[in-house]
Amino acid sequence: MRILGIDPGYAIMGWSVLDMKGNRFRAVDYGSITTDAGVEMPLRLQHLYSELTAVIEQYRPEEASIEELFFNNNAKTVIHVGEARGVAVLACVNGGLDVYEYTPLQIKQALVGYGRADKKQVQAMVKTILNLEQVPRPDDTADAVAAAICHGHSAGAAQRLEKLKKRGMKKII
Amino acid sequence: MRILGIDPGYAIMGWSVLDMKGNRFRAVDYGSITTDAGVEMPLRLQHLYSELTAVIEQYRPEEASIEELFFNNNAKTVIHVGEARGVAVLACVNGGLDVYEYTPLQIKQALVGYGRADKKQVQAMVKTILNLEQVPRPDDTADAVAAAICHGHSAGAAQRLEKLKKRGMKKII
Repeated sequence: MRILGIDPGYAIMGWSVLDMKGNRFRAVDYGSITTDAGVEMPLRLQHLYSELTAVIEQYRPEEASIEELFFNNNAKTVIHVGEARGVAVLACVNGGLDVYEYTPLQIKQALVGYGRADKKQVQAMVKTILNLEQVPRPDDTADAVAAAICHGHSAGAAQRLEKLKKRGMKKII
Repeated sequence: MRILGIDPGYAIMGWSVLDMKGNRFRAVDYGSITTDAGVEMPLRLQHLYSELTAVIEQYRPEEASIEELFFNNNAKTVIHVGEARGVAVLACVNGGLDVYEYTPLQIKQALVGYGRADKKQVQAMVKTILNLEQVPRPDDTADAVAAAICHGHSAGAAQRLEKLKKRGMKKII
């Protein structure tokens, strides 16, 4: 399964494309899309949409994993982050992907096994799981990789559960 | 000039298309795009985008006017409203429109001449300015018409100022 991970933001949008086979991940590519603060918001949204669409067309991922956003104190920012997230989700749906969303807590839990893990612990796990020499930069890109791994884990768990059910087994808990 | 007015929302998105000639407005069409609460958000965003794109392709407006959003207390809602606004702005930019945004205060001021005007006063002015028999329904559609009128007024004022400047006159205030 090929997964697109997205860390939604309007100044920097991180993305990652990972292949998952069994329990193993391989980094296909990752990076970030940036927009200039001096450019008007409609054009920044258009840039995010068209660049993310280009990533989707190049790598043809099947499922997308995007971080769920929460309230933030800056009214102006939260709307713009929502706008950026909206065009990212649209790029995925228009590209034929199924879109899954995970809270920051779920992502940390999936990577480190602990919802209150800090950024460095998550990044260390990203590096280890993908067997990378460096942590992906900027942080937004590392977060997009983490989102993709989180989805891979939960999709993998769901598949295993499905197989168990087909064999007539029941999950105990 | 043909103006597209948008009241952004994810459950109901109001839209209006108005022609402005001199100081006069004519309603070309208006309506609202609705999405079902039972449908997943990515598909709701896709529906909003494709329906608004269809309106743009049908009526070919040149400029878009969209209400600026402010902070709202429900964290979940504000992100989704931002997402819907993002795909609406994207539909406009991808459709070749220039996008302008106005605060609720500016819209009320433009319609009623008073920033603290209530919804009913704004709707009464919408009805009068467009010489309609009924106030457009739902409220989201009426708001989209008000946004378009607000832009028409301010674009008209800007044009008149431009003409004065070309004739070598200066604005006094």
